[in-house]
Amino acid sequence: MAIAVDAMGGDSPLSVQVEAAVKAVNDFGIDVVLVGAFEQIEETLKLHNYDSDKLRIVNSTETVEMNESPASALRQKKDSSIRVAVDLVKAGEAEAVVSAGNTGASMATAKFVLKSIEGIERPAIASIMPSVHRNHPFVLLDAGANTDCKPLYLFQFALMGDAYARTYLHLENPRVALLNNGEEEGKGYLELKETYDLLKQSTLNFVGNIEGKAMFRDKVNVVVCDGFVGNIALKV
Amino acid sequence: MAIAVDAMGGDSPLSVQVEAAVKAVNDFGIDVVLVGAFEQIEETLKLHNYDSDKLRIVNSTETVEMNESPASALRQKKDSSIRVAVDLVKAGEAEAVVSAGNTGASMATAKFVLKSIEGIERPAIASIMPSVHRNHPFVLLDAGANTDCKPLYLFQFALMGDAYARTYLHLENPRVALLNNGEEEGKGYLELKETYDLLKQSTLNFVGNIEGKAMFRDKVNVVVCDGFVGNIALKV
Repeated sequence: MAIAVDAMGGDSPLSVQVEAAVKAVNDFGIDVVLVGAFEQIEETLKLHNYDSDKLRIVNSTETVEMNESPASALRQKKDSSIRVAVDLVKAGEAEAVVSAGNTGASMATAKFVLKSIEGIERPAIASIMPSVHRNHPFVLLDAGANTDCKPLYLFQFALMGDAYARTYLHLENPRVALLNNGEEEGKGYLELKETYDLLKQSTLNFVGNIEGKAMFRDKVNVVVCDGFVGNIALKV
Repeated sequence: MAIAVDAMGGDSPLSVQVEAAVKAVNDFGIDVVLVGAFEQIEETLKLHNYDSDKLRIVNSTETVEMNESPASALRQKKDSSIRVAVDLVKAGEAEAVVSAGNTGASMATAKFVLKSIEGIERPAIASIMPSVHRNHPFVLLDAGANTDCKPLYLFQFALMGDAYARTYLHLENPRVALLNNGEEEGKGYLELKETYDLLKQSTLNFVGNIEGKAMFRDKVNVVVCDGFVGNIALKV
């Protein structure tokens, strides 16, 4: 199995994505499929040494621009690099997609082509965040996919964060917290109070609200917030 | 005129507030009124040297606890240190109040006793934030007073931030920005889009949306957000 890499998306020139893909092949022995303008990618690859059995190119003729609306990208660019990359996952030719391109378009394409896991209504962006404790990162989600979130979405983000922390951080019972403007129950706006109740009644190891500063120091494993707040927290 | 200092509020013992008040008197020649438990303050003051003409004590018999609800503090503790301190401003015996105590109770008491400026519906917490540029701090508001904000409140925060930047940062035409999850017009949730329109139509020097990272580097002077996001941004 391989990782599909969107060679066209992002603020950097194609050469950056190609170089990174070669590095992944060489340093980690990963199989990579570079998706984008075939000839340009081929030309750039000539500058590098790598095991050609582990790296192939799949052509695409269109690129989603960074400021393009996800809906129009999805409707009008059916041969974009991100779309072709996601189609490879759908077809079983790749296991995952990496893209530095238009986030909204990537999310929308993935949701449209691959659908969500049953019972999950919205995808979230999960970001691995460092903490003040050595070897103790935590998962912050949503880091920017959904500006407006119903309590049920936030609750489902917690479920996904829990699964992620169990699988990739190898934790048996991840400590899940809700990002809020105070620790006490009842803090935050109405949707957060409702989310708190959902989490409290769940089988998750919910440790309560957490403040923006404390999340870097309190040894929690999953921090849940809406995509607007997550984006601000990530960028600050 | 003098500054009223709430000697009782906060996570630190009274001695910390008293020592800070003495330092303000000695280092800056400010007149201070310490409000709180008279005998305790008097006892602590004996440990310090200061010009006794510039520091007096006003007694109060109650203290608002950190986890107390603002509404109950306001209703039930009419002789709290914060209430007595704010009453001194109302009576013209002090120009301002400093408190390290319960933020919500301080805000509620100030709003109830002193009222807001005409045309301003909600008070905001303004925080002076450092930037990557030397001597170029900016005003972030609301840093935590109002969890839910209508577009009109956010617009009024911009007006207050502008006035603050003109007066205390000595700027002629402060650059006002709206904290958002992207720079482009149309970003963020519905209330932010409406706030954007209000700001664009105003006479303020509105420079558009700003992201969490850019606000520390883009030489803006006033950054507007709701109190929930501002609290997270401040603590992160």
